[in-house]
Amino acid sequence: MKLYDFKGAPNPRRVRMYMAEKGISMPTQEIDLMAREQHEDAFRAVNPWCTVPVLELDDGTHICEAMTIIRYLEAIQPEPPLLGTTPVEQATISMWEHKLEVDAMLAVGEVLRNSIHRFAGRALPGPVDHEQIPALAERGRKRIAYFMELLEERLGESEHVGGADFSVADITALVAVDFAARVVEGLLDSHPNVQRWHESVSARPSAQA
Amino acid sequence: MKLYDFKGAPNPRRVRMYMAEKGISMPTQEIDLMAREQHEDAFRAVNPWCTVPVLELDDGTHICEAMTIIRYLEAIQPEPPLLGTTPVEQATISMWEHKLEVDAMLAVGEVLRNSIHRFAGRALPGPVDHEQIPALAERGRKRIAYFMELLEERLGESEHVGGADFSVADITALVAVDFAARVVEGLLDSHPNVQRWHESVSARPSAQA
Repeated sequence: MKLYDFKGAPNPRRVRMYMAEKGISMPTQEIDLMAREQHEDAFRAVNPWCTVPVLELDDGTHICEAMTIIRYLEAIQPEPPLLGTTPVEQATISMWEHKLEVDAMLAVGEVLRNSIHRFAGRALPGPVDHEQIPALAERGRKRIAYFMELLEERLGESEHVGGADFSVADITALVAVDFAARVVEGLLDSHPNVQRWHESVSARPSAQA
Repeated sequence: MKLYDFKGAPNPRRVRMYMAEKGISMPTQEIDLMAREQHEDAFRAVNPWCTVPVLELDDGTHICEAMTIIRYLEAIQPEPPLLGTTPVEQATISMWEHKLEVDAMLAVGEVLRNSIHRFAGRALPGPVDHEQIPALAERGRKRIAYFMELLEERLGESEHVGGADFSVADITALVAVDFAARVVEGLLDSHPNVQRWHESVSARPSAQA
């Protein structure tokens, strides 16, 4: 297997952190998103959606999208479980993971891609160009404030995001919070529960992957 | 178990169609989104995220979010499999399902919620109010055109969206296409593969659920 990766982007980090927690290692190929390498023919042949991460299987099959790759790896190597073990645990982790992807990852992406010059004309990932919408960057900031409140409340009642144990919901949350910190100063201020959790999860070796 | 439902909304339809395919039935409770019942205290106690569908287990646990509910039901009743059987089948279905959720369901939602009067001040689901952004409705139309192209190409090489067999990827795709048809006239014109597939999938009794 091989992972198409990019160190500076949040979605590949979700997969790298997951792999480090599982003790899975494989060759990686860096796709330089800053140089728009994802739009070159060579990479379009791997993933016409022009996104990383992509997992390449030994038979040449390509699996796109962070959580899909994670679920695939969990299916072929279940231990240690990071998606829960019972159906209810799995559902709790899955609903939080999904919530954070939509309300946090996408919201931070909205802020970044609709405000900084580097993303002019590239306000969404993928092969189609989209102009920036400044009002969407503003809305994204409001959405970040909401997900931080949500996370603060959740981490006041639960040790980890998906329940008592560390799971993939913590991975998505950590990546989202670190991503949000790029666009919001003092993000963790007045969020003591998130701060406690962030220190603990950031101290895991996998957080450096 | 009980399902909190709303007949007029696309996400609960994904779960109802899935349940019909699996032969699962349970009591449902209609939450009238037109009357903003999802924002009332009684429903906030069920789901503070103010969205349907929600699955209520017999012990009172609430599971939110369409795909999470579907994955839960698949875990407790695997037959007939609608999420694939081998890890590679599961991954192919999952990546298409996810793609259609983000590029299709969310895009159509952007058009509807940012253009029609009924959603003024309510441009995103959930407890926080957001003003409409007309440019986002326009962008959503462009995104719909892209996912229709994507689907047309996919259904030219594959009988169903997730592979040879009918799967949950077809459910999300059908719900997304029918949802998109509310905002784009002649959506299926010049998409013969989507048309062929749409006729076949719409003829399944579950499409009426």
